[in-house]
Amino acid sequence: MSELRQDIATKRWVIVSKERAKRPHQFLKQAVVQEEPDHRDDCPFCEGNETQTPPEVYALRDGSDPNRPGWKVRVVPNKFAALSPSAKWEVSHPEVFTTINGYGSHEVIIETPLHNQTLATLPQEQVELVLQAVLQRMRTLAQDERIAFVQVFRNHGAAAGTSLVHPHSQLIATPIVPTNIREEIEGARRFYDDRVTCVYCYMLAKELEVGERVVLSTDHYVVLAPFASRFPFELMILPRQHSASFVAEAKREEVTFLADVLRRTLLLLYRAANNPDYNAVLHTAPLRDSCMDYYHWHIEIVPRLTTPAGFELGSGIYITTAIPEETAAYLREQAQQLGI
Amino acid sequence: MSELRQDIATKRWVIVSKERAKRPHQFLKQAVVQEEPDHRDDCPFCEGNETQTPPEVYALRDGSDPNRPGWKVRVVPNKFAALSPSAKWEVSHPEVFTTINGYGSHEVIIETPLHNQTLATLPQEQVELVLQAVLQRMRTLAQDERIAFVQVFRNHGAAAGTSLVHPHSQLIATPIVPTNIREEIEGARRFYDDRVTCVYCYMLAKELEVGERVVLSTDHYVVLAPFASRFPFELMILPRQHSASFVAEAKREEVTFLADVLRRTLLLLYRAANNPDYNAVLHTAPLRDSCMDYYHWHIEIVPRLTTPAGFELGSGIYITTAIPEETAAYLREQAQQLGI
Repeated sequence: MSELRQDIATKRWVIVSKERAKRPHQFLKQAVVQEEPDHRDDCPFCEGNETQTPPEVYALRDGSDPNRPGWKVRVVPNKFAALSPSAKWEVSHPEVFTTINGYGSHEVIIETPLHNQTLATLPQEQVELVLQAVLQRMRTLAQDERIAFVQVFRNHGAAAGTSLVHPHSQLIATPIVPTNIREEIEGARRFYDDRVTCVYCYMLAKELEVGERVVLSTDHYVVLAPFASRFPFELMILPRQHSASFVAEAKREEVTFLADVLRRTLLLLYRAANNPDYNAVLHTAPLRDSCMDYYHWHIEIVPRLTTPAGFELGSGIYITTAIPEETAAYLREQAQQLGI
Repeated sequence: MSELRQDIATKRWVIVSKERAKRPHQFLKQAVVQEEPDHRDDCPFCEGNETQTPPEVYALRDGSDPNRPGWKVRVVPNKFAALSPSAKWEVSHPEVFTTINGYGSHEVIIETPLHNQTLATLPQEQVELVLQAVLQRMRTLAQDERIAFVQVFRNHGAAAGTSLVHPHSQLIATPIVPTNIREEIEGARRFYDDRVTCVYCYMLAKELEVGERVVLSTDHYVVLAPFASRFPFELMILPRQHSASFVAEAKREEVTFLADVLRRTLLLLYRAANNPDYNAVLHTAPLRDSCMDYYHWHIEIVPRLTTPAGFELGSGIYITTAIPEETAAYLREQAQQLGI
């Protein structure tokens, strides 16, 4: 029998279609042999090709000059930026058609000089450097009062909307708080008003009690197959300790712990789920719209193994044929076998 | 310069990326020659194969027996139904993990016996019969008090999530009002509370005044390229007259007028946009949650020519490189040339 499940924070529904359910491995594509070299002359993100990108806004270097080889992580404006800091911040709200000029930033975090790696296959120290660069850029952008939110995301593979193979993440700093984020925070606020507790803390405690949807668990983070997963192999990385804002509160050592759990989670997907195309998205508090008590930052990882259709677009209800408890059990077992 | 645009009803934002903008025709795939025959023995929706589907729940026939050949439109339960009327209606809400048993209906409207047509290429009278069948099923399902909403949708092509070529629409009757619908209605209610007018009526009047995003216009309906379009060639069909609920208020003659505008809109996409994969979704009032004064039913048509990625998933803000005014101008010109 099918079951409708509701996400406790967003109130979003999914239909878990049990008759049509497939075992976790049935969602997987065939393993793909990595055929890319570690350097390409025509890749704008490879070392030595620094002039093929706009000038860098940040880089981790051991003394080498900007926009030259010798970097570990490099942040550049997106060549086809959706938003730009050179636009004028200007709102127009005639009676109907509200617009804002495209003020903001759209940056690419080039995660390594190596063309044929991905975050999952990089050493722990390199993932730490990537997160440090992300955090640094978020803090710098947060100083601009015209920026309301910074959305950090990673598109991996063609089905996830990327065309460039070279490992990279992106961030877009927007002059507005995105509607999805507002709704998530609003759901958390209502829960807090009812129960005087953070909905994510509450849910996490229950998930640890039940255990069946826990995929990985460290001293600082828990990785879950969410109760109301929309997609097969959907995962959520949650800090154990209550914290609304990644950018405001992350300490240097937290970056180390996060790099560890993020790398292991992505490596698990890479190895146990045949390197699926995926989107990873950081959900964190807006920069100037405090929700300290009731919001809880987290990372959502959404493999793109299925295609949302008209029903999902219209209703916002997802039909899934993957059962999160089975996915979690499969991944736990694989993590043990693979020593991840 | 890019521009952020806000949808007046949902408050959803899009970024229109003007530097990266493509002309409308640049989004189009190559024209595909239709290679399917008009009948296939292995297609469960073809005439003569009625035993390959679950027994029909409704059909338009000239005196022939149920589940036999001789029908014009046929409605059957989805063989892999996401929800079923044989499930028990039962809500479970322990402290965290809210579920409902999979009570509801999931039906397929087989739009014609002809395997190799699509709604765009069917005669006007056949499209009318399809809409009559949809309306009839919605009215029947609405009598069940356990059903809160009926989502009608059409998935056309693989990128839109369908595997079956034979022309069909679907409906899913849910025991809950979907979150997306609630949000849309909530936005409309807030606007009504502010201005004491329906936001869709208000927007439509402005769009007709401006004219630049109007694609087709009949005595009863207007087709728009929405101001805050998320996707290239996204279209919206709006009734001119205020009406919250398609199912409660559609008269017999309105079905005739709607069939006309729907067929012409889809034919325009088919011919002027090279038969793109698309989702079409009916947005209408919930069955038992009245919003008569402030909601306004409509149809959204979303071609699937681009892939939403991490930014869209996380923020709910869409980046589009198609400018709605250009799309509308292109389609208006094509409609005239093609005599649609």
